[in-house]
Amino acid sequence: MIKVGIVGGTGYTGVELLRLLARHPQVQLTAITSRADAGTRVDAMFPSLRGYVDLCFSHPDQSQLDQCDAVFFATPNGIAMQQARALLDAGVRVIDLAADFRIKDIPTWEKWYGMAHACPELVAEAVYGLPEVNREAIKTARLVANPGCYPTAVQLGFLPLIEAGLVDTSNLIADAKSGVSGAGRKAEIGTLLAEAADSFKAYGVPGHRHLPEIKQGLARAAGNEVGLTFVPHLTPMIRGIHATLYSRIKTDADLQALFEQRYASEPFVDVLPAGSHPETRSVRGANTCRIAVHRPQGGDTVVVLSVIDNLVKGAAGQAVHNLNLMFGLPEATALDVVPLLP
Amino acid sequence: MIKVGIVGGTGYTGVELLRLLARHPQVQLTAITSRADAGTRVDAMFPSLRGYVDLCFSHPDQSQLDQCDAVFFATPNGIAMQQARALLDAGVRVIDLAADFRIKDIPTWEKWYGMAHACPELVAEAVYGLPEVNREAIKTARLVANPGCYPTAVQLGFLPLIEAGLVDTSNLIADAKSGVSGAGRKAEIGTLLAEAADSFKAYGVPGHRHLPEIKQGLARAAGNEVGLTFVPHLTPMIRGIHATLYSRIKTDADLQALFEQRYASEPFVDVLPAGSHPETRSVRGANTCRIAVHRPQGGDTVVVLSVIDNLVKGAAGQAVHNLNLMFGLPEATALDVVPLLP
Amino acid sequence: MIKVGIVGGTGYTGVELLRLLARHPQVQLTAITSRADAGTRVDAMFPSLRGYVDLCFSHPDQSQLDQCDAVFFATPNGIAMQQARALLDAGVRVIDLAADFRIKDIPTWEKWYGMAHACPELVAEAVYGLPEVNREAIKTARLVANPGCYPTAVQLGFLPLIEAGLVDTSNLIADAKSGVSGAGRKAEIGTLLAEAADSFKAYGVPGHRHLPEIKQGLARAAGNEVGLTFVPHLTPMIRGIHATLYSRIKTDADLQALFEQRYASEPFVDVLPAGSHPETRSVRGANTCRIAVHRPQGGDTVVVLSVIDNLVKGAAGQAVHNLNLMFGLPEATALDVVPLLP
Amino acid sequence: MIKVGIVGGTGYTGVELLRLLARHPQVQLTAITSRADAGTRVDAMFPSLRGYVDLCFSHPDQSQLDQCDAVFFATPNGIAMQQARALLDAGVRVIDLAADFRIKDIPTWEKWYGMAHACPELVAEAVYGLPEVNREAIKTARLVANPGCYPTAVQLGFLPLIEAGLVDTSNLIADAKSGVSGAGRKAEIGTLLAEAADSFKAYGVPGHRHLPEIKQGLARAAGNEVGLTFVPHLTPMIRGIHATLYSRIKTDADLQALFEQRYASEPFVDVLPAGSHPETRSVRGANTCRIAVHRPQGGDTVVVLSVIDNLVKGAAGQAVHNLNLMFGLPEATALDVVPLLP
Repeated sequence: MIKVGIVGGTGYTGVELLRLLARHPQVQLTAITSRADAGTRVDAMFPSLRGYVDLCFSHPDQSQLDQCDAVFFATPNGIAMQQARALLDAGVRVIDLAADFRIKDIPTWEKWYGMAHACPELVAEAVYGLPEVNREAIKTARLVANPGCYPTAVQLGFLPLIEAGLVDTSNLIADAKSGVSGAGRKAEIGTLLAEAADSFKAYGVPGHRHLPEIKQGLARAAGNEVGLTFVPHLTPMIRGIHATLYSRIKTDADLQALFEQRYASEPFVDVLPAGSHPETRSVRGANTCRIAVHRPQGGDTVVVLSVIDNLVKGAAGQAVHNLNLMFGLPEATALDVVPLLP
Repeated sequence: MIKVGIVGGTGYTGVELLRLLARHPQVQLTAITSRADAGTRVDAMFPSLRGYVDLCFSHPDQSQLDQCDAVFFATPNGIAMQQARALLDAGVRVIDLAADFRIKDIPTWEKWYGMAHACPELVAEAVYGLPEVNREAIKTARLVANPGCYPTAVQLGFLPLIEAGLVDTSNLIADAKSGVSGAGRKAEIGTLLAEAADSFKAYGVPGHRHLPEIKQGLARAAGNEVGLTFVPHLTPMIRGIHATLYSRIKTDADLQALFEQRYASEPFVDVLPAGSHPETRSVRGANTCRIAVHRPQGGDTVVVLSVIDNLVKGAAGQAVHNLNLMFGLPEATALDVVPLLP
Repeated sequence: MIKVGIVGGTGYTGVELLRLLARHPQVQLTAITSRADAGTRVDAMFPSLRGYVDLCFSHPDQSQLDQCDAVFFATPNGIAMQQARALLDAGVRVIDLAADFRIKDIPTWEKWYGMAHACPELVAEAVYGLPEVNREAIKTARLVANPGCYPTAVQLGFLPLIEAGLVDTSNLIADAKSGVSGAGRKAEIGTLLAEAADSFKAYGVPGHRHLPEIKQGLARAAGNEVGLTFVPHLTPMIRGIHATLYSRIKTDADLQALFEQRYASEPFVDVLPAGSHPETRSVRGANTCRIAVHRPQGGDTVVVLSVIDNLVKGAAGQAVHNLNLMFGLPEATALDVVPLLP
Repeated sequence: MIKVGIVGGTGYTGVELLRLLARHPQVQLTAITSRADAGTRVDAMFPSLRGYVDLCFSHPDQSQLDQCDAVFFATPNGIAMQQARALLDAGVRVIDLAADFRIKDIPTWEKWYGMAHACPELVAEAVYGLPEVNREAIKTARLVANPGCYPTAVQLGFLPLIEAGLVDTSNLIADAKSGVSGAGRKAEIGTLLAEAADSFKAYGVPGHRHLPEIKQGLARAAGNEVGLTFVPHLTPMIRGIHATLYSRIKTDADLQALFEQRYASEPFVDVLPAGSHPETRSVRGANTCRIAVHRPQGGDTVVVLSVIDNLVKGAAGQAVHNLNLMFGLPEATALDVVPLLP
């Protein structure tokens, strides 16, 4: 059994990790920390876990995380970078669901996240945990930077086109829509039901922190810098991201076949039949990314539709996938969940 | 392996049966019928099932349901009563998720359902499939009448009080609220998002078909007729029923202990700690009924709060529970699902 | 022109007052205070008011509220009772949308609101602002206690029955459901969209602050104390309250005629035809209470369905109605709004 | 008083016309037709109109529409083109809210709408009813083709850039999101709450009927054909369209000033301050289009955010605006509505 700890268990990525890990046959949940709620039973805060999790939240300092085999950070940005070194030194493997180790270029990270990086020397070692790109490196990684939710949906949609060199990478557009759970379980006015329901808006148009992460990933695939306009939107639903991706084709190709081949052996990417329009609910609760590729009116613009559950493939599910890879388990362990529809 | 057929697989109870049975280790899905959609792949209609169900809908007449060990009817009222006899004669065990076999008194059934009963002689044989009441009878039943969604939530909430003889059964009130999936996957104006979202209403106050079913179940527990006012409401959400139950106490008692003892060995009823308010989302996707019992201001009125997922404990999950009982399997087989929260 | 000030303009009752008053032909909006947002343009916080309100929020201390003819308090409980005396002394008439002056019995108020009352001598003078009961007193009042949202919906539904002496008032039940705007525009986790959407729950079953207010109003109508069980619920919508009211009839009567006659001359209470089920959306944005009365299955239980928009008839609209009465204006001035449906 | 008739009053554009016209001081509602519901009181179907509309739906053949001064067609596509000629001949002015007269090129119309045009000779005469472009022509028009909802939001967002010749019109992208009321009040499975809530999807990517309408309007502004990729999406809300528009800038300019100047005298277009992100709820129930213009990261891509209420500025409100223009009334008559927020 793999002894697993979770730092910061009271947010949405935390409770989603618990939902998935509670039924993971090789995982023993050992510690779930929360500074504010230490001593509270986890299932008192989240009654959905009654019968599945009988732990209490523990204080981070007394949680003996260093006795674990693996620790997930489901914390705000800036926490994991302070604690990862000690855990790694104690032989614990670390998966950070926040952004601390995603961006390789330290000044870029510091500019977008507005703080000095506490542990730049680990950034180079950290493996970006997108299994469809870095599967082999993840298997042996000590430290995995779990991708952001938007970056997962956008990269998986663009990668086949860019890897094949088919599109103009100087002018990519990602118009992305997220459910409000992406904003986290935080007391804020903007995501109250009475504010966010029955309405729709863009946000962060001048610049969103996921922009450099996406650009880094696409540039690696392209072999050069890419030009990207990324516009996130808030949509009145709980879970789900829908990315609508636009690019200009340079060379003709069978796009449907390209996508199907690229992801033929991927357990968590599902290329839909030609002409499809994936719904976010078709992946609700599951670790799947469903993708459709279109070329409207036979023109030069390729439109890719990519949907994920932001809390699963966009966060906790992908983190469990990474755990499975790191510990040599079948990739779908604990992730074999049929989406909840309706 | 148990060979299972589903008649009427295109509604919400049908797709929910598929979601649960797709991961049932002892079930082999053999046929899913749909008169209107015969020949269509199931996962083309429900992409959430891609990778889990590779069957096509078959025409009811050509589906060889009589080769199955068990058949679920996920059909409108009035269908199962026409087909059950032939299946039973062929040795197939039948679980009807509609109302055809729920009401023992034929005139009462015919009055509320507005049609002549096609098969009254089977009504007496049919076992009402509420495991918390009829577990032993279900195990040997050939024909199970799966309870309605409201009746499940209301009966489980009232039963401990009535069985213990603590409350005045001449004047019970059940104020119940349901998500719109309870209305089924039917093209109707009233349950369009643009009609039903951001609004709330009662319906069927003069009389709802679940009234006689609930009264029958409560009368059996009470040993006499009961007086019940039942008011269902439509609430703007997809899944979930919340029943708020009111009764007048006759004899003092430790209600919390009463409820805990009544359901101590029930795998799918969870009595919450005193003072709790269950949320429907705490059972989303799961076969659990969560219950809290209150006595506000120390008065004579007992208030019971009972929540279920109408498509699971209120329909498909309870049907799978019945299947497990009928075939001697562990009761939680395929039902060990952590609710999806948020 | 009536010079009007609003204390606490950043909550939902504040912005709703602004929506209604912006088109009030006899009102000149003079000051809108907010301690936290002083200096901010109102329409920067609420872009829906662009073109209608060009004021900035002012600091309460510098807002010269005593120059107004009337001041609305759209503040949390406990504020108006500290400031009302000075305003009244300056000749300003006051309408409090919070609870400070609603409960006549000071110890009861202090018990439920958890603070000492700062101004008990004004409580006796304050007029409870339910026009359907206190119209004449409101016209001459200096200080109006605007009713709570639940109390408005529940009292209007019960009053005809109680005033006529038709029902047993020892055992009334009010099962009420509210949209989340009733919780106010406050940064709290419980009313985040990701928490409150697609779910339903009761809250405050042991006791809710609106219980004594409702009981006081019903007792006045009954001429004696009443027994009331009041269970509020949170429903996943923005606006609207639906109260489902249960009582036992003592004397036979034509209930439909009773309700129609009671409210025949009321501009803001609409008794629906027999057999109706009012939807909350049918009053969205309007100051109307729609009511239907049922006697299911011809039994002894009377069921009344009463819907309001909690921010209009349950708060700001009723406050404007009171203003109109206090200043001798036509009652519907600025309240002649067609509900927004869908 | 202008005598007004509405053909097809039972859909969402019909009831929205009624909401607005009920308070129009110069309009006398004379006839509202519905083939299916003739004889039914309008306010029995739409209780929100109780007290405002006391008409019954009349049969189209017996409604004496030719006695009206103006008739709105709130019908499916293909109806107005069969009836407009007779009305015009009788001296009635016609506003069609469907698509029959929007596309000047008949073969294009017939291809996208899948039927032969019944009245091509009127297409040339019809004035496209976008007041911000065709105000003068509308004033004298006998027949106005009221714009589609998406075309309104998209054109108003693109027009300043295109009219000024600032952007490359060969490669425009319009990523648009609509609430489900845009699909109409029709009994269909796809827009049930249980299907469309808590989910998000694109639709019509290969081609949507509003594409040629938008291209026609933009081409007129550009003076040449334009290249446009238009992707509509369904978002889980009732009302509202959010268009996110992308284009490549050719010539540097002060975009904020450009937009402000273009719409300085328009009563129903509101250019937000630089850096803004309009929400659809900020125009809920109102005839306003709110627009923000961005140039993310100082790059070559201009992003315009444009929101409307699809039933008001995108349908009924714009139709009333056209009526006001046609009859020489102040443009905002009956349209001076403060948006409903929250």
